[in-house]
Amino acid sequence: MSNTEALFRPKSIAVVGASRHPGKIGYEVLKNLINYGFKGKIYPVNPKADEILGLKTYPKVSSIPDEVDMIVVSVPAKLVPGVVEDAGKKGVKVAVIITSGFKEIGKVELEREVVETARKHGMRVLGPNIFGIVYTPLRINATFGPQEVIPGSVGFITQSGALGIALMGMTIVEKIGVSTIVSIGNKADIDDADLLQFLEKDESTKVVLIYLEGVTDGKKFMKAAESFSLRKPLIVVKAGKTEAGAKAVASHTGSLAGNVAIYSTLFKESGILEAVNVEQAFDWARAFSYLPPYEDGQLVIVTNGGGAGVLATDVLAENGISLSRPPDSLVNSLKPKLPEFASLKNPIDVTGMISNEGYVDAVIEAIRNDGVGAVLALYCETAVTDPVVIADELINAVKELGGLRKPITVAMIGGEKSYKAVAKLNEAGIPTYPMPERAASSMAALINYRKVRERVERRLKELGRTTNA
Amino acid sequence: MSNTEALFRPKSIAVVGASRHPGKIGYEVLKNLINYGFKGKIYPVNPKADEILGLKTYPKVSSIPDEVDMIVVSVPAKLVPGVVEDAGKKGVKVAVIITSGFKEIGKVELEREVVETARKHGMRVLGPNIFGIVYTPLRINATFGPQEVIPGSVGFITQSGALGIALMGMTIVEKIGVSTIVSIGNKADIDDADLLQFLEKDESTKVVLIYLEGVTDGKKFMKAAESFSLRKPLIVVKAGKTEAGAKAVASHTGSLAGNVAIYSTLFKESGILEAVNVEQAFDWARAFSYLPPYEDGQLVIVTNGGGAGVLATDVLAENGISLSRPPDSLVNSLKPKLPEFASLKNPIDVTGMISNEGYVDAVIEAIRNDGVGAVLALYCETAVTDPVVIADELINAVKELGGLRKPITVAMIGGEKSYKAVAKLNEAGIPTYPMPERAASSMAALINYRKVRERVERRLKELGRTTNA
Repeated sequence: MSNTEALFRPKSIAVVGASRHPGKIGYEVLKNLINYGFKGKIYPVNPKADEILGLKTYPKVSSIPDEVDMIVVSVPAKLVPGVVEDAGKKGVKVAVIITSGFKEIGKVELEREVVETARKHGMRVLGPNIFGIVYTPLRINATFGPQEVIPGSVGFITQSGALGIALMGMTIVEKIGVSTIVSIGNKADIDDADLLQFLEKDESTKVVLIYLEGVTDGKKFMKAAESFSLRKPLIVVKAGKTEAGAKAVASHTGSLAGNVAIYSTLFKESGILEAVNVEQAFDWARAFSYLPPYEDGQLVIVTNGGGAGVLATDVLAENGISLSRPPDSLVNSLKPKLPEFASLKNPIDVTGMISNEGYVDAVIEAIRNDGVGAVLALYCETAVTDPVVIADELINAVKELGGLRKPITVAMIGGEKSYKAVAKLNEAGIPTYPMPERAASSMAALINYRKVRERVERRLKELGRTTNA
Repeated sequence: MSNTEALFRPKSIAVVGASRHPGKIGYEVLKNLINYGFKGKIYPVNPKADEILGLKTYPKVSSIPDEVDMIVVSVPAKLVPGVVEDAGKKGVKVAVIITSGFKEIGKVELEREVVETARKHGMRVLGPNIFGIVYTPLRINATFGPQEVIPGSVGFITQSGALGIALMGMTIVEKIGVSTIVSIGNKADIDDADLLQFLEKDESTKVVLIYLEGVTDGKKFMKAAESFSLRKPLIVVKAGKTEAGAKAVASHTGSLAGNVAIYSTLFKESGILEAVNVEQAFDWARAFSYLPPYEDGQLVIVTNGGGAGVLATDVLAENGISLSRPPDSLVNSLKPKLPEFASLKNPIDVTGMISNEGYVDAVIEAIRNDGVGAVLALYCETAVTDPVVIADELINAVKELGGLRKPITVAMIGGEKSYKAVAKLNEAGIPTYPMPERAASSMAALINYRKVRERVERRLKELGRTTNA
């Protein structure tokens, strides 16, 4: 097991700075680790306690009688180098340093001391100035954030602590399942590239989303991103895209946000899907995480509201995706079933007169059609339909199909019932949004990722680099 | 009372095609009209019934013994001209024609006949092919959409029926209060410009949002928009912004979506605030509807998460809004109260260590400062704070200030509690969003509207046109 791997797959974790006092970081981390169900060994380290949360405590890491793979540290900054030295000597593989008060407030030397101490012993460091790490396949929640993170296949890396922990909570409400959440903070040692190298091969992770303020080693990042993009989609929200934003970054994490133009080029070249904002990034991540990749074949829009179809068509066109006439076989099979004034162009407008069954049938017909490669289903709540019934029927119909073998994104627009339907569909693994543009943008990301991957592949070939994809 | 005015302020309404059968449009419209509490007279018209929903019915409009200002028509298309003739003779001022099956399916002649018949009698026509009209100040809900629309000051005009009715439901869930919702459909007679002329003077309407596919009389629309923009913000979501979208529009409402570039120029010149999508349009409408206009003075960001501050700074910069150092008086008064590593630049980063009270105090201090013209408050849910408590305290503090005299937009980012806090603050009239970028974009719209208004004013002066603003 490499030491980066130990970050995700430790067999034993020591919580250094474990506390008996609820509200303290050292208490919350230990509680989350125990309650979220980590099956490995957990050792609280606190020289002033015998037992915390039912576990025997140890005065220091080196006094733990067994092997320790990972330590999670929340003691004051000035004590951190000593803890790292002690753990390093014992052979700990990775230190997750939650403690803040390092480079971000100008204490560059103290941070360097920590990293150098760790390196001396071949130990890796995550942080400092972070909220911890989650890895759901092994039920690790070593953070002081929310406890009941939903297991899933989104990997979320965040350079911002407070925003990251808030978004961690958001994923729970929005039913976005994660494989991992990594607070990367000052990136004194382990950086985004290191994490991407691991997650590229991690079977539990289908897509990675990074909240990025700046990178320290551009070349290393780009190489890791390229390699990652060949296998899995990589979504980035770049903070500090403007000069003013870059200044704000400098006073936040002390990172160089760098030149905007350079980032955009770098992102494009290395196959990164750049989202305009956090909402869009998670919209996309949801779609990639739930769905099979887009392979080939036409994208068909099915809508019961013409306006929603127009808005979606605009978003697709803005993302370089054009719509062609639906396959004849689909047109022929749908025609007799739809209301008189339905439009069988693309978007297929089944009209507001359609029933629950009529709407679901049209969507399923589209999914089943061999010429169709992807479906964008838009639904506007009408007096003659019930969005919750539609959600249930759609979920059942997809089950009967044996799951989704091509991507579909859904928008359910309306009142209370539509909001319920959105939640239901998302829980069932059908990515659904309350706005047509969000469903369309997610579909565009799915389709464009195929092109992006091919472009990276071509580029690497031209450069004579081998790819292992 | 002008005949357009009768659309919003009828003293009596006849529902032509009133039905006893729930689910039928003629039933739903009558039920909404009665249950939403319209205080004027309501006459169901149906030759085959004596009484519907407890009201005496009449065989036709002309057999109603009293004056009738408005008729709401849902009889089959071919019967509409006869109904309009009968009502016109009686002196009805305006016909709201819900019935579809006119120009949108190629029946141009039938639509023309309706309008000509109406004009002969000096009657105005809304529609056809619409879901009706809402005007909350007089408790009019003459639609077959959701009943319990929330009264407020947003005017919503929609060219799309199914999407419009779905968004009507969305405003209820999202606590967006409306003064009016007008389904404008085929615009055979009354168009956006007519509505703007009325709403410009309507005291219950603070902001108008139009879902627009195309305009028929560009000059008339532009003049009405200009005049409107001088008094109130006008937000437009343009559907059919791309060539593909324009084609979809043609097959939807039969409107000419027109040339994209032309629309954007026209919008800018006439002071329209163009939103990129429906979500953004309602985000802005919420802010304009709740808040006093931005007058002058600095915009200050207060955040407990550096990342959220960076994202907001980017959005502001992209919208031409730069941040300068907060007023010294604010810096001096905040400094002693904030954690050691707080940043007192702009964004003011009060750090993730701040308490509930500390956060609310900082926001209120900013609002109270004379040099501050607007506040953007960003909050990331942390372990040491409670978003619901913060919402309550902020609501109370604003009450103690005697309400808001300058604009503030808020983002509450996090889990379940943050979502509750968002709803609470919105109910209390403080525009709040679950994402930092959405709060920032709404603030940018508020600030830029002042510039837009001034630009329109200058332009009209140069053209030698008088303005009555």
